[in-house]
Amino acid sequence: MRPSSSPSDGLFGGLSGAPDVDAELSDQSLVQAMLDVQAALARAAADAGILPAPAAEAIVEQCRAERYDPQALGRAADATGNPVVALVAELTAAVPEHARPWVHLGATSQDVLDTALALVAVRALGPLLRHLDAAVAAAAQLADTHRDTVMVARTLGQQAAPTTFGLKAAGWLTGLVEARDRLRQARAAQPAQLGGAVGTLAAFDSAGAEVAERFAAHLGLTPSPLPWHTRRQPWLDLATALGGLLVAAGKAALDVGLLAQNEVGEVAEGGTGRGGSSAMPHKRNPVDSILVTAAAGRGPGLIATLFAAAVHEHERAAGAWHAEWEPLLDLLHLGGGAAARCARMLVGLQVRPERMRENLDATGGVLLAEAVAARLAPAVGRGVAHDLVTRAAAQPSFRAALLADPEIRAHLSDTEIAEALDPSRWLGSAGRFVDRALVAAHGASR
Amino acid sequence: MRPSSSPSDGLFGGLSGAPDVDAELSDQSLVQAMLDVQAALARAAADAGILPAPAAEAIVEQCRAERYDPQALGRAADATGNPVVALVAELTAAVPEHARPWVHLGATSQDVLDTALALVAVRALGPLLRHLDAAVAAAAQLADTHRDTVMVARTLGQQAAPTTFGLKAAGWLTGLVEARDRLRQARAAQPAQLGGAVGTLAAFDSAGAEVAERFAAHLGLTPSPLPWHTRRQPWLDLATALGGLLVAAGKAALDVGLLAQNEVGEVAEGGTGRGGSSAMPHKRNPVDSILVTAAAGRGPGLIATLFAAAVHEHERAAGAWHAEWEPLLDLLHLGGGAAARCARMLVGLQVRPERMRENLDATGGVLLAEAVAARLAPAVGRGVAHDLVTRAAAQPSFRAALLADPEIRAHLSDTEIAEALDPSRWLGSAGRFVDRALVAAHGASR
Amino acid sequence: MRPSSSPSDGLFGGLSGAPDVDAELSDQSLVQAMLDVQAALARAAADAGILPAPAAEAIVEQCRAERYDPQALGRAADATGNPVVALVAELTAAVPEHARPWVHLGATSQDVLDTALALVAVRALGPLLRHLDAAVAAAAQLADTHRDTVMVARTLGQQAAPTTFGLKAAGWLTGLVEARDRLRQARAAQPAQLGGAVGTLAAFDSAGAEVAERFAAHLGLTPSPLPWHTRRQPWLDLATALGGLLVAAGKAALDVGLLAQNEVGEVAEGGTGRGGSSAMPHKRNPVDSILVTAAAGRGPGLIATLFAAAVHEHERAAGAWHAEWEPLLDLLHLGGGAAARCARMLVGLQVRPERMRENLDATGGVLLAEAVAARLAPAVGRGVAHDLVTRAAAQPSFRAALLADPEIRAHLSDTEIAEALDPSRWLGSAGRFVDRALVAAHGASR
Amino acid sequence: MRPSSSPSDGLFGGLSGAPDVDAELSDQSLVQAMLDVQAALARAAADAGILPAPAAEAIVEQCRAERYDPQALGRAADATGNPVVALVAELTAAVPEHARPWVHLGATSQDVLDTALALVAVRALGPLLRHLDAAVAAAAQLADTHRDTVMVARTLGQQAAPTTFGLKAAGWLTGLVEARDRLRQARAAQPAQLGGAVGTLAAFDSAGAEVAERFAAHLGLTPSPLPWHTRRQPWLDLATALGGLLVAAGKAALDVGLLAQNEVGEVAEGGTGRGGSSAMPHKRNPVDSILVTAAAGRGPGLIATLFAAAVHEHERAAGAWHAEWEPLLDLLHLGGGAAARCARMLVGLQVRPERMRENLDATGGVLLAEAVAARLAPAVGRGVAHDLVTRAAAQPSFRAALLADPEIRAHLSDTEIAEALDPSRWLGSAGRFVDRALVAAHGASR
Repeated sequence: MRPSSSPSDGLFGGLSGAPDVDAELSDQSLVQAMLDVQAALARAAADAGILPAPAAEAIVEQCRAERYDPQALGRAADATGNPVVALVAELTAAVPEHARPWVHLGATSQDVLDTALALVAVRALGPLLRHLDAAVAAAAQLADTHRDTVMVARTLGQQAAPTTFGLKAAGWLTGLVEARDRLRQARAAQPAQLGGAVGTLAAFDSAGAEVAERFAAHLGLTPSPLPWHTRRQPWLDLATALGGLLVAAGKAALDVGLLAQNEVGEVAEGGTGRGGSSAMPHKRNPVDSILVTAAAGRGPGLIATLFAAAVHEHERAAGAWHAEWEPLLDLLHLGGGAAARCARMLVGLQVRPERMRENLDATGGVLLAEAVAARLAPAVGRGVAHDLVTRAAAQPSFRAALLADPEIRAHLSDTEIAEALDPSRWLGSAGRFVDRALVAAHGASR
Repeated sequence: MRPSSSPSDGLFGGLSGAPDVDAELSDQSLVQAMLDVQAALARAAADAGILPAPAAEAIVEQCRAERYDPQALGRAADATGNPVVALVAELTAAVPEHARPWVHLGATSQDVLDTALALVAVRALGPLLRHLDAAVAAAAQLADTHRDTVMVARTLGQQAAPTTFGLKAAGWLTGLVEARDRLRQARAAQPAQLGGAVGTLAAFDSAGAEVAERFAAHLGLTPSPLPWHTRRQPWLDLATALGGLLVAAGKAALDVGLLAQNEVGEVAEGGTGRGGSSAMPHKRNPVDSILVTAAAGRGPGLIATLFAAAVHEHERAAGAWHAEWEPLLDLLHLGGGAAARCARMLVGLQVRPERMRENLDATGGVLLAEAVAARLAPAVGRGVAHDLVTRAAAQPSFRAALLADPEIRAHLSDTEIAEALDPSRWLGSAGRFVDRALVAAHGASR
Repeated sequence: MRPSSSPSDGLFGGLSGAPDVDAELSDQSLVQAMLDVQAALARAAADAGILPAPAAEAIVEQCRAERYDPQALGRAADATGNPVVALVAELTAAVPEHARPWVHLGATSQDVLDTALALVAVRALGPLLRHLDAAVAAAAQLADTHRDTVMVARTLGQQAAPTTFGLKAAGWLTGLVEARDRLRQARAAQPAQLGGAVGTLAAFDSAGAEVAERFAAHLGLTPSPLPWHTRRQPWLDLATALGGLLVAAGKAALDVGLLAQNEVGEVAEGGTGRGGSSAMPHKRNPVDSILVTAAAGRGPGLIATLFAAAVHEHERAAGAWHAEWEPLLDLLHLGGGAAARCARMLVGLQVRPERMRENLDATGGVLLAEAVAARLAPAVGRGVAHDLVTRAAAQPSFRAALLADPEIRAHLSDTEIAEALDPSRWLGSAGRFVDRALVAAHGASR
Repeated sequence: MRPSSSPSDGLFGGLSGAPDVDAELSDQSLVQAMLDVQAALARAAADAGILPAPAAEAIVEQCRAERYDPQALGRAADATGNPVVALVAELTAAVPEHARPWVHLGATSQDVLDTALALVAVRALGPLLRHLDAAVAAAAQLADTHRDTVMVARTLGQQAAPTTFGLKAAGWLTGLVEARDRLRQARAAQPAQLGGAVGTLAAFDSAGAEVAERFAAHLGLTPSPLPWHTRRQPWLDLATALGGLLVAAGKAALDVGLLAQNEVGEVAEGGTGRGGSSAMPHKRNPVDSILVTAAAGRGPGLIATLFAAAVHEHERAAGAWHAEWEPLLDLLHLGGGAAARCARMLVGLQVRPERMRENLDATGGVLLAEAVAARLAPAVGRGVAHDLVTRAAAQPSFRAALLADPEIRAHLSDTEIAEALDPSRWLGSAGRFVDRALVAAHGASR
């Protein structure tokens, strides 16, 4: 007996995914979702008076995944190109004779599989969004706690000027909240698919639209005004929302990885016993940062695959449809892992304000050159101020050069120079931006 | 003198783009957009009392693209990695001395270039959306005109059952309308970027947020609650909306190409003198279908590039930012070409209902097997009905087999068989779906 | 007990892969490959006199996959970011105490995993190349059998001029042979990886290079002159070779799908009981063509992922390495399925020369316009010939127009016109090209 | 008059490309290449006695790009979907009347464009490979000069153990040499394309193969055994070779960018006046590293596009072919820029051995833990040695802990501890690997 086949099984799946999300992506979950579709179809057709109620009940009765073997369905699928035909055959065999002609009534394989994948997406997004909520909360906590913790901002790979760790965390926060917004929208918009063989619902005569609406209602999915057999925008919206999550989590992970470099040392991942090396006992690798970075690196290719597979010819596609299934599941899998690991990384993050301050001070105040020039400008004009400061910045010690320069000292006192070189006075709107991000995240959480 | 360098120039650009969209993407348009940004920055800082009004006026006065040479700016960009530094130097040299210290005040290169690209996107989406409106109108016209034109639906590459050309066109229409919705949203949401050197707007002290709002207002762009130097969701939204357009146009183009095959012959592209071959005088290639298909094939890779480039480290990225510019412009270019060609293809489309009917009839009614079974079911049960019909479908002529089968004839008259084999009676909700698509498109146009 | 977790298990894996290839990609196979690496490492170090022979024997003794649980290894991997650390711990615990300090001597996790993946690639390419050999043989058979079977060539979606089905099959053949060449090269070049913690093999002092060579020899892999921890060209070569296979198989599949359209009807897939529809009993879907097309659609995104992940920073990468594992296995999986299905598709292909001839004749000879012009040219000049023929081609019946045109009849007899309109006389070098392709394929097979 | 339209023109092109490579990719160069193809076709057909020698001479005479306007050809291309039809019309109009019927004899548009692109690739690879040679030479120089310059190796983002800068440079070198090998192969293999309308060369009757060989010879391209209209492996080989270059250059650039971080400071880019910021006078951005990183980020998407576009249906493709042109040129453009900038970056690289040593020593010797254990092992066994060292490594100062530990001191003298902590004694095969890389690069250059 094989109890499961979720993507977190095995050697690598656990490193890219999260167990609770992956449980919703397992073969058993997929089979259950296809059976839920069959049950909803029977109920909807019974609602519309097309299918006898006892037949519907008999069908619903058999729609339990544990009665079917995903391996066998998968093997049988080779003959038809999808696992639905075999499942319909099994389900038909399982129901009493009176119900058999009514199984799968009016539907096509793509109706079943598309709707089942939409259901699976909704279900997987449950735990995924819980992880993402935790990541959002952790980023908000960091932004709030470190609203005024000064550190050096780095642009184009180089130290640039002061910022706060709070503003950095507020950036992570805003990215994660934006990703969450899009994922919530995608979850709420997951559409049922019911078009029948060619998208006309011919088998339901004039009742097609009604059946389709009831069908969606039974599943808690959004009804689609017309079938979307060849209009794949729903998958693109889902895929790009997951891609946005991978980007937002990937940004936080990349920053954490860079800040955790020994030479920078401004943060470290938490977690005792994690990050060990097979060769070097002293090493502590930022494992969550690394694995989120890896997941983020796999998003673009999968998104490209889904955009390429979104052009479906005629009324149902020969190949483009089949190319969607696994990449879509892969993106849900990677999104789940990235959300869970990003949350763990941010919750446990060890922040080192003293190292931030050391790194900020290491270049002797030259990062504040712009601030000094701003202080001088009212007295000497912006142009002269810039020239004076540039001259001082070329000296080995910027601070000493400022203090020693008579033209500068004619306008700035010791105290004024000290104030100009105080990074906490050159933060502009950083605090305000943090506050905005916190308000926005708080609003979005309600 | 070189008058232009729009992407439609030269040998290939005109085949992938549209001249009016490309005019907004030219180097001159980019330079003008960067200068518009500088002008708005000066005005916003003047509004906030930071910058003297005469200096702002003097800066605005010089913000005209024809005064600058894109080639020279491009060459100078090699030393700094972007064209803004050189433009700032040129602009500074152009203004009177009193204004010089105020040029580019408080901004960083990325503020200028991100905002300029947002402006360029808004401007390019103008003509692009006009082409898309035309495509939408043409698809709606086809759906309306051919609401009841029966044809064969093809699934997985094979003839399947009857549908209408109206429903096919309604599918194109719905796809194009969905793409338009997303592009309109993306256009309306294009954000101004103003964060200064490291995203704190330090140079504006406490006035940063106010300056940023005035800045956005002067440009007609959306203000961003906090700078998005390293949060690239706006580009992802724009890129995926353009990708959605390429998919929607690509779907129509692929269908037209397949329906225009000699052996199918159900549609042809219009346009006299188009589609000629260099080797075969009798040939008429569906050029717009082909070129839209080609454009659609280039979307996924560019979208992948932008998702990969969306993970920006620290406060401003070393490379990821630089990787965005050309792919973003490429997507606008391809979207413009696809919209324009899709519109032309649909406006001129020659539809051949008689060939549609011939192809539908070519298999002797077997495509209506499901319809015959549905007629038989009330009398003999769905299971027996299916078996009887399957037996008849295995004969050389399905129609003849039905008429000759005594078990079938016991329940169906000549007229009933004829009715069952009439494709116009087996269209289910096709007409209703067309009506819905037309209503939705009409609503969306207002 | 869970007996396997190969990618062909479950609902979808069997549709994209092939069981025999996937068996080599299963978790158990991966664990065995990692253990083979550990065994080879012990042997190589013992060969160099670094490790006591009894310790090496004891280690080798425990290198059997059935003793380890991939699920448990996968779960443990979360703490370190890869499954090697846990496997080393398990292996160390399994060996007698005297051997424990020698397990994993001098190696790093990446040595084990990279080399194991190279081994897995070699092993999976075995059955994959057998499938590909079968596809090559079938394509050669088709090219040979139909060397002179005339059919219409189609360019840019339109009927163009005569060709032969043999030449079409020779094109498939050549593509498959080229793919096979590259895959064979990639298989032969799969390198062992041994660099130790940072690529210096410091733990082996001056014996590192010797150990590395022995290590590769024990595994039957190619020794690498220096470690390739951050030089990923071997994966790129493998991935692009597999991508070439997907393209070559995808080309044949796309052609088969298009030729199998009801309106074309020139080929059909073989296989009784395959291609059934869940909704339409009369349908016969070209399932292998469809699934190979789907597999081909997934190659580009995976290849892009591997190129993006090939830029590894410093001495071993934080994330880029981790992003490679699953995409590489996915490509082997998809390549296996594509090779197997392409072989089955070509072996069973039903070719219909009579339909080919019908389709060729359907346009009344106009496809031979160029041939008629060539016959006229010696008499009237190429320019006049072209004009006369173009005039005739514009008539409803080209043949009748030729026969009725006095200017043409002044130079061409009935027989000459008939010959000019005979497609088998306007095939140029088609036969010669087929012969060349067969010779080349034959040579490559030896 | 518009003198040029190379991809290096304008605002962004110069940042992604190199002027000398881009000159070969300009519209004028493309037109010249198409004309070279027409000239070679005329000569080859004349060689075979098919075309009168004076006509061939007259055609060749007009095959000069300056006589044609790329803008006009581009505009005319919209009607046919490619620029060849218009060029053939212009060329035909330009030659004397006797030669007109012989222009473009037996060829199709794709023959001209594919062969022209192959020619352009060969020509662009000239300067590109010269840049790459310079990069190879600079990497070799760095590897040689710094063969024994110790520095810290970093794995998974963390300091790991000693290595040499020479070995790092040897890794860059080997990557660049591998890329060069593949590019040289691709250049040598660029094939001529000649198949005529449908790949049979029907217009040449039985002389097709001879004409095709002469044609290739006139152009200095490789003859193809059969036409490759729908077999796009040559483009894939070229694209992946360019992708390999982007990866190899991108690896060096990423390392340089990381090593140039202020907190690391081990290298800096050379070049006075480069790397300035628009906002911060003290900054010095590693511009070449940044721009090469950006170029490397765009490779994967373009390669994916070319793999996706490599599946061509029937005898010539409707869209897939058209999707190849610009991505192929883009890759040549990006490859040129990356090679040139990588060379400049490596030639001017400022290496700071003293900072390397400081960073190596910053963690107090703990990076040598493995070395100390190796010294202890012969006396106490590997297991005990590991435990002793791990205990010491947990102390604040590893060195002090070693010196103070009586169990360790029982076996290691002061000198032995000092030697064990000397990174230059724990480099394993680093020097040998550098030597191998230099020998291999030297061999490959000949």
